[in-house]
Amino acid sequence: MRQLHLKKAQISGAHDGPLPSWDRSSRGGGGGVRGGEESRGIDEAALAINHLLGIAALGLVCVWCGNVRGGLLWNSPNKDLLFNFHPVLMIAGFVFVHGQANLTYRTLTGSRNYKKAIHFLAQGLALVLGAVGFLAALKFHNDRGIDNFYSLHSWLGLTTMTLFVTQWTVGFVSFWYPGGSTAARSSILPWHIFSGIFLYTLSLVTAETGLLEKLTFLQTSQAIERFGRESTLVNSLGLILVLLGFFHALALLTPKPPR
Amino acid sequence: MRQLHLKKAQISGAHDGPLPSWDRSSRGGGGGVRGGEESRGIDEAALAINHLLGIAALGLVCVWCGNVRGGLLWNSPNKDLLFNFHPVLMIAGFVFVHGQANLTYRTLTGSRNYKKAIHFLAQGLALVLGAVGFLAALKFHNDRGIDNFYSLHSWLGLTTMTLFVTQWTVGFVSFWYPGGSTAARSSILPWHIFSGIFLYTLSLVTAETGLLEKLTFLQTSQAIERFGRESTLVNSLGLILVLLGFFHALALLTPKPPR
Repeated sequence: MRQLHLKKAQISGAHDGPLPSWDRSSRGGGGGVRGGEESRGIDEAALAINHLLGIAALGLVCVWCGNVRGGLLWNSPNKDLLFNFHPVLMIAGFVFVHGQANLTYRTLTGSRNYKKAIHFLAQGLALVLGAVGFLAALKFHNDRGIDNFYSLHSWLGLTTMTLFVTQWTVGFVSFWYPGGSTAARSSILPWHIFSGIFLYTLSLVTAETGLLEKLTFLQTSQAIERFGRESTLVNSLGLILVLLGFFHALALLTPKPPR
Repeated sequence: MRQLHLKKAQISGAHDGPLPSWDRSSRGGGGGVRGGEESRGIDEAALAINHLLGIAALGLVCVWCGNVRGGLLWNSPNKDLLFNFHPVLMIAGFVFVHGQANLTYRTLTGSRNYKKAIHFLAQGLALVLGAVGFLAALKFHNDRGIDNFYSLHSWLGLTTMTLFVTQWTVGFVSFWYPGGSTAARSSILPWHIFSGIFLYTLSLVTAETGLLEKLTFLQTSQAIERFGRESTLVNSLGLILVLLGFFHALALLTPKPPR
């Protein structure tokens, strides 16, 4: 098994591994406490797997909605084609772009301000995609005369979006403009990172419940078979999201390799 | 806002906060790199909230299944009373006891071996409760002639249980009997902890999908109302599980307070 050492690079040099501390003060430019060489392999592997899984998730939802479920069309008498925007935009926004945005400081080289700008803009893009995806579901429900906001999935979704906006706003105000003092930033940053990982996990939980809800509707109405290819495809997407959660957390919590 | 400092207690003494590194080598008895006094309040608050939320979740599922859904009875012509064992035992086992077991090293005083024994036994209890809960669902399906293992919830559940057994076994062999070398334990421990937090999150995800699935069935068959009290109760349980995930991770990742 590949050696993973507890991160004590600046203490004894003995170990580094997942779940390190890091100093991500604004002065440090997100540099953080770095691990030993052993962490490089894990860090790179986790990042690479993240990218692959994110692309896979995006691909699967596009195949599901764009092909199997008939396509995406906002203004169509067939409201199913409107609904299909919802899973696609949510996976694109709150899973894929959101995940990439979280990993900005790990994947990009460049100045501190450059990475920070990309981080904020990408999170903003995730929010925009997610907001349109939300509107798609809302319009679908209203056009079909279906009740809104009764399901646990919708409650989780509203929670996720509300927290996402909060996180983005607090982050912007604290770290971008007007920005806080160095001491304030140092205080806020660990909460920001922790909340960011939690928020991504919540996005995945919301996605899982959404996939299950849609499949349950389709299977209950006998529109699709329980053990058919569509059910298998969507369940597989659900498992990919689980893997994504694992490697996302691993990538974010493994010490950065030495410079 | 309460000051949360990045954990560098043994580096500069400047900060501690969530997402620290820790040295949980077997020699250290789980003592870990400790934070400053500021972390004590967060640590204690997170633990207390964990306990409260865990009890609340357990209480809610008991009210739902034991009262609203009619009660729990294993051998009854009314198979709904058999099914009711499933949510109760899963929340009791894989959410409540599992969560307490994860927090053993944070909540208990005593020798290293004592805490380790409680940790392993509690995880074993969680597994037993979850296994019986699994059997309840299986028997319910078989008695009712319902297909097994087609839903995303069941796929997540099987994944969770498989990984749980793996984690428990690897943990037992590595840290209890026959036990690995000190070097081996040091290597495995960070993975064990990281996987443990991931596994708890996965348990919560599985629970969320289960709650949604059951509610969707009940609402679709018009057995309950979408905005009725039962729907609200179960959705609230779903939100409590989200909070539990947050504070559980916070409690596990915040540095231990100084001795």
